[in-house]
Amino acid sequence: MASSAGNKTTESKGLEGVIALHTGICDIDGQKGKLIYRGYSIEDLAKNCTFEEVAWLLWQGELPTADEKHHLERQLVGERPLPPMARELMEMTPEDVDPMAFLRTGISTLALFDSEADDPSSEANFRKSIRLTAQIPVLLAGFDRRRNGQPLVRPRPDLATAANFLYMLRGEVPGEEAMRIFDTCLILHAEHGLNASTFTGRVIGATLSDVYSGISGAVGALKGPLHGGANRKVMEMLADIDRSGLDPAEWIRQRLTEKARIMGFGHRVYKTLDPRAAILRDMSEALAEERGNRKWFDMSVKVMQTMEQEKGLYPNVDFFSASVYTTLGIPTDLFTPVFAMARITGWTAHLLEQWADNRLIRPRAAYNGPQGRTTKR
Amino acid sequence: MASSAGNKTTESKGLEGVIALHTGICDIDGQKGKLIYRGYSIEDLAKNCTFEEVAWLLWQGELPTADEKHHLERQLVGERPLPPMARELMEMTPEDVDPMAFLRTGISTLALFDSEADDPSSEANFRKSIRLTAQIPVLLAGFDRRRNGQPLVRPRPDLATAANFLYMLRGEVPGEEAMRIFDTCLILHAEHGLNASTFTGRVIGATLSDVYSGISGAVGALKGPLHGGANRKVMEMLADIDRSGLDPAEWIRQRLTEKARIMGFGHRVYKTLDPRAAILRDMSEALAEERGNRKWFDMSVKVMQTMEQEKGLYPNVDFFSASVYTTLGIPTDLFTPVFAMARITGWTAHLLEQWADNRLIRPRAAYNGPQGRTTKR
Repeated sequence: MASSAGNKTTESKGLEGVIALHTGICDIDGQKGKLIYRGYSIEDLAKNCTFEEVAWLLWQGELPTADEKHHLERQLVGERPLPPMARELMEMTPEDVDPMAFLRTGISTLALFDSEADDPSSEANFRKSIRLTAQIPVLLAGFDRRRNGQPLVRPRPDLATAANFLYMLRGEVPGEEAMRIFDTCLILHAEHGLNASTFTGRVIGATLSDVYSGISGAVGALKGPLHGGANRKVMEMLADIDRSGLDPAEWIRQRLTEKARIMGFGHRVYKTLDPRAAILRDMSEALAEERGNRKWFDMSVKVMQTMEQEKGLYPNVDFFSASVYTTLGIPTDLFTPVFAMARITGWTAHLLEQWADNRLIRPRAAYNGPQGRTTKR
Repeated sequence: MASSAGNKTTESKGLEGVIALHTGICDIDGQKGKLIYRGYSIEDLAKNCTFEEVAWLLWQGELPTADEKHHLERQLVGERPLPPMARELMEMTPEDVDPMAFLRTGISTLALFDSEADDPSSEANFRKSIRLTAQIPVLLAGFDRRRNGQPLVRPRPDLATAANFLYMLRGEVPGEEAMRIFDTCLILHAEHGLNASTFTGRVIGATLSDVYSGISGAVGALKGPLHGGANRKVMEMLADIDRSGLDPAEWIRQRLTEKARIMGFGHRVYKTLDPRAAILRDMSEALAEERGNRKWFDMSVKVMQTMEQEKGLYPNVDFFSASVYTTLGIPTDLFTPVFAMARITGWTAHLLEQWADNRLIRPRAAYNGPQGRTTKR
């Protein structure tokens, strides 16, 4: 055992059930299917707010006034231009690189060209939070266009974060439903408590390191298949169903007979319907109509109905975001980076909260290796 | 409170005193001043092994055979060349950038050009551990030369990790004592249990993310002033003493009267002499002699004696590494990156151990924010 200096110790593998910190940002009631940002229900925010308003709420604890909202929107537009090195990185990154590895590197690179990178004041940290929220979509859209040999699309100052990302990615302004539903997707993914990536960011931040270190670390954690990436696997399943030519209900029943795991159902935290899935389900049909492409939506509904009948399981947020993102023209391997593009607001809110009352986060390890060896030379 | 799904919970702010995992890599007995890597005392390893042998020990759990050692040394030499993008990054990084931000970015960038970056096999992860151990010194030396407007120095295949770094940094092969003491410095900094950076790496790794994500996150954590950076502050103190023109004993006594904190003394874990400081103290005089520069060594000894007389405090590893690094010609702001250049072996050993028996590392947060708010629109 590592020495304990006489202190009381407890043990919890993986820190399960250990409360590491208190937070005022997000509350999750998995039994009742409630998700709360700063005291507001996710249903209320999804229906009545924009992503920019929710970002401000996460950072500041209050919804913005009209002036604050306008100012934030202008700042986000103004912060979009990338340093030349980020362009260089887009040009030189091999096209088969995992977009999350590109994003982690891109964020780390932005720090080198931010004169405020190491300014620890809360004002500078807030500005860096806005800057990253503005620049991550530009990095991602640029990366995707370059790997496809397409010219970059300049951001449009009249478009908000969600709409501008789709515009830079596809080269055309999305329709009203597409803009609205993608903005809602960003709200739904903006924050979800102390998951592994948010925890990573706070552990890094707690050494009094900087925003870019915390966020590139969080992106590295979200990259892991046990954390991000579930909606990508849902889409791969939907594509498999499509290729099989089978009726979705039949495909699912076959897989269930084989005891295979069906992606996008059930949640470690939610023991009932994931409130985010309910919101997405209700919105995604309108999108399918607008796009004139009901294929993935109809397939998703059939899969959902079959899972409810056969297993009594409800879809989670990953399930419906997969078909929505595909209908919006987002490539499957960008699903996790798009998650990061929304979660940057929650991650930075947690960093700001960490620094407001900082304490190093450092558990202990117990030694179980050999003792008393010598090199005998 | 976040929902607990009926599980038992404990609370520990900052996770102090909570055992998060078991490890066979490193044991620290702070009461007795013992540091153990894989069962061997740090004194034994420092005296009888090279950095490359200790790296193998940390990774594999056993000291290498002669064949294994030879093979590892050849691998390390063979992995030194950097992809062109890393050169580009050196060229384009502004000269006043924090070297830790450059290193974090450089490591993340290397992933984009490593075809094994996302291969999760233990063989590939071991190769990536060796690769990073080989490439970090090349990144750092190149960064320092470029920011000083000096031409890059190509690595020399006849020089081991420590000697080659000094050669690439200064452009001349270091003397025998310099090579030996810097190699020992790398051994002393190679591993130190579950500190904040190592913990960061394991939290990221536990999502089944990749080596580069874990290590760039660890570098981001080490960058924080509450973690890395103490030996840099020691050197700044020695430079202050030098500039003051005062006798070091007098300078220290004045500061103690002012209740100022003296850097490099005492340790959160060690309640007696840090075993690494004792090793360094004994070696650093020989280095000062070889270099014909006793200035920083003599000053350090006077500071140490004064602190022992006045406060009964002993120096820690940061204290003597500051004067050693300066005598070796390493710039003060590279002290923390040099720490990372050694610790890469411990960090990667912990990632390999994490993946051998993986479990997600995720504590909980308790919600203390507002409830029941509505947008009322």
